[in-house]
Parts: sequence; C-alpha cells; structure tokens
Amino acid sequence: MKAFREELWFETRQRREFINITPQVIECLRESGIREGLCLVNAMHITSSCFVNDAESGLHADFEKWLEKLAPEKPYSQYAHNGAEDNADAHLKRTIMGREVVVAVTVGKLDLGPWEQIFYGEFDGKRRKRVLVKIIGE
Amino acid sequence: MKAFREELWFETRQRREFINITPQVIECLRESGIREGLCLVNAMHITSSCFVNDAESGLHADFEKWLEKLAPEKPYSQYAHNGAEDNADAHLKRTIMGREVVVAVTVGKLDLGPWEQIFYGEFDGKRRKRVLVKIIGE
Amino acid sequence: MKAFREELWFETRQRREFINITPQVIECLRESGIREGLCLVNAMHITSSCFVNDAESGLHADFEKWLEKLAPEKPYSQYAHNGAEDNADAHLKRTIMGREVVVAVTVGKLDLGPWEQIFYGEFDGKRRKRVLVKIIGE
Repeated sequence: MKAFREELWFETRQRREFINITPQVIECLRESGIREGLCLVNAMHITSSCFVNDAESGLHADFEKWLEKLAPEKPYSQYAHNGAEDNADAHLKRTIMGREVVVAVTVGKLDLGPWEQIFYGEFDGKRRKRVLVKIIGE
Repeated sequence: MKAFREELWFETRQRREFINITPQVIECLRESGIREGLCLVNAMHITSSCFVNDAESGLHADFEKWLEKLAPEKPYSQYAHNGAEDNADAHLKRTIMGREVVVAVTVGKLDLGPWEQIFYGEFDGKRRKRVLVKIIGE
Repeated sequence: MKAFREELWFETRQRREFINITPQVIECLRESGIREGLCLVNAMHITSSCFVNDAESGLHADFEKWLEKLAPEKPYSQYAHNGAEDNADAHLKRTIMGREVVVAVTVGKLDLGPWEQIFYGEFDGKRRKRVLVKIIGE
C-alpha cells in the first residue's frame, strides 16, 4: 500500500469564497503514482469546508444566500461562541457544506461524475488556511 | 490490496425519490471478495445524494417536507442557478443530505449498525443517473 | 494491509449531548499499530452523529439552539415518523451534523488540523449507543 500526503494553502481576499481545487487534487494524484485507492480531501480548519458540486457561478451565489439564511453572520451577538471571536456562523455554514470528501481513484484518475468538481469553501477567510489531501492505494 | 468498482444506475419516475440501495451494495461487496477494508458509496451527480438512515416511510415523508422547507423547489426564479435549468433546489437539498457514505467492511460484511440502511436520494430525477461503489481492502 | 476495528459505547444522561471522543480515537489508532492510512469514525445509530469541530462550549450551545431551529423536537405531531417513536427530529439533526468522519493517519498520528476535534453528537440519548472506529493502512 502506498500513502501520499499534501497540504494545499489558501488565503482568500473575502470572508467567504468558493475555490475550485480539482486541478490541485488531480496534480496530487499524479504525484502520488497511485492507480487504485481512495483520496480524502478535508479542510484542516473548522470554519471551512471541502465539498463536491457544480462549477457554476449562479449556484455559488445561491449557496452564499442560502447559507446566510440558514446561519446568518450577523448580528454577532446571537451566538454564544462570539465574543473574542466573530465566526460562529462560519462553524455552522461549514457544517452544512461538510468537512471532507472521499473520492475513488480508478486507473490513476479521480473517479468523478461528469459535473463533479471539488471545492474549498471558505467561511472565515482573509488568513492562511489549508486543506489536506491524503491518498492511499496502490 | 484489492480494489473493486461498480456503477449502480437509476431512473426515478418522480423528481424526488429515496431508494434503499443496501442490497446492491452488499452484492458489490460479495463480488469484490474483499473481507477487510472500506466501501465508498457516492452519487456521481451533483443533484443527488447517498446517505445512511432508517428504512421507514414516515421518516422519508418527513425528509421530503423538511428539505422543501429548507430549500424549496419553487419559485424557480428565487435561484440564480435557474434559467436554462430549474434544479438549484436539488443542489441545495443534496448538500444537506450528503454526497457520499463510507462504510467499514469487516469479515466480509458491511459493518452497519442495527438500523443503518444506505439510500440513494434523488432530487432531480426522471433521467438516468448513477452511484459509484468503490471498495478497497483485502 | 492492516485493519483495526473497535466500538465505543455511550449512554448520555440527556436527550442531546456532544462528547469529545478524540482521546478514544487516538487510543484506537495506538492499539492498531497503523502508521499510514485512513480512519473512519461513524455513528452506528441513525439518530446520532460523528463530526469534527471546535471543543468550545459556547459553540456547542449554538449548535443546540441552531439545530432546534432547523429541526425542532416539538411538537412531536409535526413528523410522520413519530407515533410509536418521538425521535424524528433526531434523524434530521443527525443529517445536518453528519454520520461519519474520515481522518487521515500520517506517521502513526491522526492528521488533524490545529483545532480539529472529533465529537459524538447524541440527539436521542439516555440509552446505550455506539460508534464504530475502523482503521485501515500499514
């Protein structure tokens, strides 16, 4: 069994942002040399997310609006977590979007459906944060 | 290490439907011959879901009603994604329900709890769509 | 390839509770002797959850309030699932929080980010329930 590990680093300009990281994950897989196995992609921070969905800007605008409805950023005082911090909403938003994705590796490729793309979802950005890519297999 | 891959295809009669796919996943595991490992089951489409929950029709009716409350299908015009498409709500619903499940394989069996069943959740059906089953182990 | 399996049992005093299980998962990993691989941690019950977030009591109070807003426990009669049972809300809450987490194992350690902690989320407690820890690797 082979194991490969890489960190992907991000620093968004806005508090919330979606970044398509499929090309970086594909590059990790290529470097790993693994042909059959599983690829874990997870946010290493608890106010961001890795998820699979569509690379379509309208949908991303819908996500932003919808997450703000389900877990609004403001008023900050509505959350017990806020005080020294102001990011309780980011913890909740990331919970909806998910921490991680596991993608099959088949014949040396990410085994994704036709429209599946892997995204990093940032909900408390403007600072350096990272994603873990771990691939195991043969 | 062994690796096994299978696609399960579905074409639902309704826009939204839940299908218990546990028997098909068990059959995949049997074919794989894998005794110890991990089994990934994921929707290959971004408007459907794989999840684990109860095989109970009342609960499924509750899911339908609840998802419609959290991410209503109509009016279509409420979503930026809709225009050529009308399925933005399906992307959001699937996000709540999850893309994938990872199930342990122990002594040749899916290592599920007493009531755990694996479901395919369709949120934009009436066309052929598929689920990936990938099993790795020994 | 090595495989390790352990069940963690819980009986909460309250209907809903969050328990930090990171120390138990670390102990499982130590016992397994696995240095590189993947660690699956999943609730074996469909009314509880395993998730990764912050070990901060204010945030946990926010989760409790937020989940009650998104999927209220009462009135019980609002859910078709309730009748013989009263736990439909627990099935929905667990869906938001997630069934499972997959954590990378690197150089014999759980490969977690600085604030990542693994939690058991109970939504229908006061009885014995369990979590599965399955680790595969080398």
